[in-house]
Amino acid sequence: MTDRKKVVIVGGGFGGLWAAQALANKPVDVTLVDRKNHHVFQPLLYQVATAVLSPGEIAQPIRRILHSAKNIEVILGEVVGFDLMNNSALLEDGSEVGFDYLIVAAGARHAYFGHDDWEVSAPGLKTIEDAVEIRSRVLLAFEMAERDAYLKGAYDPLNFIVVGGGPTGVELAGAIADIATQALANDFKAIDTRKARVILFEGSDRVLGTFTPDLSESAKSQLESLGVEVRLNSYVDDIAPGRVKVGGEWIHCDVVLWATGVAASSLGKQLGVETDKAGRVFVEPDLSLPGHPNIFVIGDMASIKQANGEPVPGVSPAAMQMGTTTAKNILAELKGKPRNEFEYVNKGSMATIGRKKAIADVFGLKLKGFVAWVFWLVLHVFFLIGFRNRFLVLTDWFWAYMTRERSARLITGDAEELREAIKFLKAKPASEVVSTSSRQPKSINSNR
Amino acid sequence: MTDRKKVVIVGGGFGGLWAAQALANKPVDVTLVDRKNHHVFQPLLYQVATAVLSPGEIAQPIRRILHSAKNIEVILGEVVGFDLMNNSALLEDGSEVGFDYLIVAAGARHAYFGHDDWEVSAPGLKTIEDAVEIRSRVLLAFEMAERDAYLKGAYDPLNFIVVGGGPTGVELAGAIADIATQALANDFKAIDTRKARVILFEGSDRVLGTFTPDLSESAKSQLESLGVEVRLNSYVDDIAPGRVKVGGEWIHCDVVLWATGVAASSLGKQLGVETDKAGRVFVEPDLSLPGHPNIFVIGDMASIKQANGEPVPGVSPAAMQMGTTTAKNILAELKGKPRNEFEYVNKGSMATIGRKKAIADVFGLKLKGFVAWVFWLVLHVFFLIGFRNRFLVLTDWFWAYMTRERSARLITGDAEELREAIKFLKAKPASEVVSTSSRQPKSINSNR
Repeated sequence: MTDRKKVVIVGGGFGGLWAAQALANKPVDVTLVDRKNHHVFQPLLYQVATAVLSPGEIAQPIRRILHSAKNIEVILGEVVGFDLMNNSALLEDGSEVGFDYLIVAAGARHAYFGHDDWEVSAPGLKTIEDAVEIRSRVLLAFEMAERDAYLKGAYDPLNFIVVGGGPTGVELAGAIADIATQALANDFKAIDTRKARVILFEGSDRVLGTFTPDLSESAKSQLESLGVEVRLNSYVDDIAPGRVKVGGEWIHCDVVLWATGVAASSLGKQLGVETDKAGRVFVEPDLSLPGHPNIFVIGDMASIKQANGEPVPGVSPAAMQMGTTTAKNILAELKGKPRNEFEYVNKGSMATIGRKKAIADVFGLKLKGFVAWVFWLVLHVFFLIGFRNRFLVLTDWFWAYMTRERSARLITGDAEELREAIKFLKAKPASEVVSTSSRQPKSINSNR
Repeated sequence: MTDRKKVVIVGGGFGGLWAAQALANKPVDVTLVDRKNHHVFQPLLYQVATAVLSPGEIAQPIRRILHSAKNIEVILGEVVGFDLMNNSALLEDGSEVGFDYLIVAAGARHAYFGHDDWEVSAPGLKTIEDAVEIRSRVLLAFEMAERDAYLKGAYDPLNFIVVGGGPTGVELAGAIADIATQALANDFKAIDTRKARVILFEGSDRVLGTFTPDLSESAKSQLESLGVEVRLNSYVDDIAPGRVKVGGEWIHCDVVLWATGVAASSLGKQLGVETDKAGRVFVEPDLSLPGHPNIFVIGDMASIKQANGEPVPGVSPAAMQMGTTTAKNILAELKGKPRNEFEYVNKGSMATIGRKKAIADVFGLKLKGFVAWVFWLVLHVFFLIGFRNRFLVLTDWFWAYMTRERSARLITGDAEELREAIKFLKAKPASEVVSTSSRQPKSINSNR
């Protein structure tokens, strides 16, 4: 009926979605397969985890985003492997999706350096479900302390530990300190939420190591001004329910969040080529799979170097650019034109630290504090998918800014889960646990 | 230290919350215990189930609502029983909360008439978690049909069944018909969502049986104008995955929702007094427990008659009034004044049916259609807890109204859950299942 080529895209993250958008209403048939029905605006995921935004504000159904593209079909399904001989992708129920071109953009998850058992105690932040889980744990910790204080007349001071000083770790640590000192302070009566400690452990000698050293230093100061204790050169040796072992010492904690380590989707290994230690596929300069010019691997799953010899970073702008380049290369090839090699354009980078705090390295400018934060805010709202979401997120931010309230403070889960959570939080074997001795628990912040 | 009396409230629904608000900053110490951290504005729960609103828009942390009441402590916990001899409530972990006065307001859930095994196949709608589960099932049904149509070139027409023609059943049926014809129609390409059937089964001879017969008749017509098939005098005999047995005939369906039957919280039975068949406690005219004048049972848990001999209905205004009356009686008694008997003031009732469709019986007026819907809208926004939520809900409604989009269309759950759901939906044993034979599957609505 048609000799139009068929492009299958695996994954509706930034890479897959940008590829799809560049192929919209072009002379190809596109099928995008994702195991979720929604695209997540990952840069704001930490705001769901810390109760500022609702899941629906940063996620949008993929088929809604692409609904005006008449040549794109969106399918809910999990790709579990490939039949490279017959050019088809295999779904979880055994069905096959044939392709002429394949774009694999299944992203990455956090990795536990061989300690997958730590995940139960220390969740990471990649999906809406992760964010809702983290939100529940953080809020539940405050609730259980209030309950202890009320029922027993005493409570253990709250400790929140964030492992990893990259962008996600810094955002989470700053936002939890914000919550404790601002949003929750007036609502809890038996406990002083402002006495909660937030400790950020980073293995290297600075946070936000991809920025320049002076910006890292600024980020550390800004975190500390929020009350976060930043511990550099600190490796986590072990994690158990209610405690974390750092430098041979067990530290009691109520919530541990994991914000370090990346493992590319295991689909990379299904492609039968070499991958790096994190499971990223070594791709050709045009992002194609060695030996398979009709298959592309993009985004966090691709390992490729920039012209300067540095690896292309695993950030959303790189994934978007890879998606667009790949789509253009396919369209060029169908017109008999040559492909272009992928070239990463670094448009600068920024990281937010807390309310009115951030760092940015853009257009050759190094910005710190409030100015950087405004930059961050404008850009993130601008790129947020969908006008309605932009509007709602701005509304919520404005509301939070004016009232210092957090709007999305739901703990969901049934009674059984609550009982489990209580048991879990009470599992802290106090006798084995020492508090970090040298420092007095201090109030996170005093400007109530 | 203080001889202030202590009031313990079990449950933060309309009854418990209204009692707490009437006791705010009065000379008593109040403790409100709920197993969730949030109060849910139940009248809009069906809008979360049908992807119009996000959970955070109709739920608010109880401690946030009560944060300015200096004499009220909010505790997250599940009351599992009482020690009536010693005036204390027992929590799930064995701890006790002593009281001088106790207000039991733990609400009700849907009941399956002795067929609790039906719940897996036919969820009801009482909590945020229920609503998110229903939303996932409804959206997933469309997704799986699209996937079948794409992968196999064919799909079974979608059938949604709602059991029960009370307010919740009518709201759900109308809203699902709305979704299918409006919000989703442009986003699905392989299937025609407008061909989905929505069938509402009601055991009696009319829907919304608490209204006058002519309003019931109007509601039925309005439902039918949305494309809902209303089957009166139809009892469900059995429910199994993917099918429902009505009048001896198995009907295939993709989603069944349960909107009939009420069972009061099992805490009623823990009070050691007589209950009715639905587990409601027969209370004294002042809502106190027979033999225990310091214990009150209110809201959906209380069985009490109006002056006219009719039972007080299980609706939110009744629960609110009971909460307020009880609080006032406690405060009066502490001043040495007599208690008042509870008197239910019926301020009218209304039920919404779909976009711009409703019925209302207020101030002696019987309203139908658009006028009734505007009434419904204004009142529900007015009563919604919290200014921010009012504003956001209005924004979302306005957006949905202008664009016919649904904003909160997330299917959440991990890959494992997705696989289970697919298996579940595919469990329909086609051979045993007959379609309702006499009627042609018809398009729900044509005014696209």
